[in-house]
Amino acid sequence: MESSALDLPAINQRIHASAFNRWLRIEATRIVVPGQVELRMPSRAELEGGQGMTHGGIFACIVDVAAFAAILSVKGQTGPTIDMRVDFHANAFESDFIIEAQVLRAGSRIATGDVKINSVTGKLLASGRCVYVAAR
Amino acid sequence: MESSALDLPAINQRIHASAFNRWLRIEATRIVVPGQVELRMPSRAELEGGQGMTHGGIFACIVDVAAFAAILSVKGQTGPTIDMRVDFHANAFESDFIIEAQVLRAGSRIATGDVKINSVTGKLLASGRCVYVAAR
Amino acid sequence: MESSALDLPAINQRIHASAFNRWLRIEATRIVVPGQVELRMPSRAELEGGQGMTHGGIFACIVDVAAFAAILSVKGQTGPTIDMRVDFHANAFESDFIIEAQVLRAGSRIATGDVKINSVTGKLLASGRCVYVAAR
Amino acid sequence: MESSALDLPAINQRIHASAFNRWLRIEATRIVVPGQVELRMPSRAELEGGQGMTHGGIFACIVDVAAFAAILSVKGQTGPTIDMRVDFHANAFESDFIIEAQVLRAGSRIATGDVKINSVTGKLLASGRCVYVAAR
Repeated sequence: MESSALDLPAINQRIHASAFNRWLRIEATRIVVPGQVELRMPSRAELEGGQGMTHGGIFACIVDVAAFAAILSVKGQTGPTIDMRVDFHANAFESDFIIEAQVLRAGSRIATGDVKINSVTGKLLASGRCVYVAAR
Repeated sequence: MESSALDLPAINQRIHASAFNRWLRIEATRIVVPGQVELRMPSRAELEGGQGMTHGGIFACIVDVAAFAAILSVKGQTGPTIDMRVDFHANAFESDFIIEAQVLRAGSRIATGDVKINSVTGKLLASGRCVYVAAR
Repeated sequence: MESSALDLPAINQRIHASAFNRWLRIEATRIVVPGQVELRMPSRAELEGGQGMTHGGIFACIVDVAAFAAILSVKGQTGPTIDMRVDFHANAFESDFIIEAQVLRAGSRIATGDVKINSVTGKLLASGRCVYVAAR
Repeated sequence: MESSALDLPAINQRIHASAFNRWLRIEATRIVVPGQVELRMPSRAELEGGQGMTHGGIFACIVDVAAFAAILSVKGQTGPTIDMRVDFHANAFESDFIIEAQVLRAGSRIATGDVKINSVTGKLLASGRCVYVAAR
């Protein structure tokens, strides 16, 4: 059975089934079109890496969750994560992270999501991709 | 002035200057040789992703911290992170993560660390690389 | 001295200074806006990998050249390549590769180009990124 | 039917079935143990990128072929390539490239190969990974 695309409440239910995602306070805020999802996450002191900057690993966590959300909006499910990559472009403590996630390709075997993480002022902070085994 | 290599207590001091690293409870446990460092991190319920598995982003956080530690053991400092990649090989809740980090190359402009994350039973769970601007 | 952005003939002159690029027959065909460049490359039997498909390494070569062209269109020069990544989405012998390259960020230290490789019918075949040390 | 591991002549037969690999003149020279393969490739003027250096895409081609060879030495076959990454460490025209490829993990769904490209004097020039859908 092919999984069905999820709507926004169902995507957030899947995201918040994870204890770590609840700790991150990341949330899908809009399905622009199926395969393109916006998310939002507040910055806070617990996310600090070095010298007043957000921890690089936090950007990687965001890429993982956001790519997953984008794929859920077209396929309803993914298999296990294969790999991910993150490019760091700028860094600073920001009041909120505004995230755009897009399905690059959802094939029969592989699903790939592309993610951009912006500050509230629209500055590109980090971007990346996450690749999943496609769910049957 | 060229930065000097750090010893184990100094590496942990640098790691634990980050609020998020303290939350992760990640710790460098041994400098095998300068450029090769072992770390350890406990698993716990807060790190859960989906279905009884560690969150993929947590593995990315470990790769970032461990590569950083390996470079500190030879150069004492890094510049900003350029990018990172993680390959996911296996997943399960494990009692502890045993991490091996190695400097792949510490040049005048770029420093690259290679990381393997194992379970306590020696199973390869994830591996990856983190690339930094080299500190002067 | 800050390098100046190059126009289309100057970009092709730089591309074709490389013997391997001449062998590939890759060519920049349009600067959409500075930082966004279109390129074209013919397929041919010498590029075959396995089973009637284009060699995966050829897509990587295209990503490298196209990202370089995009950066030349804003900065006129790059420093050495740091790393690259390619995602393979589909494969077949195609009459021509139509390539879109875009500067993701051209900072003072790092320049990153994002590349999509399409078939003449608009099918996404591969995509990727190339990261360079920024030229002064 | 599970594919069987290939020996050195069979691996080279598979490599040289590709027109582009024949052009590259890349060759597997030794199976150290199944899953660990050495290859060799001559440098030559046709492989030049910019300023007396090997083209970055050529290193990517080598990573692709060498990871493929390592997987053939344990599984006899791979499915399609999912993605690849290359880190560039040093560059110069070298008389020969000496390549070490190792299977990082050959699972039921995904097979990953890790590759190091050295000069004949043992200098690390580039390294990377290639990820494949595992053959049944």
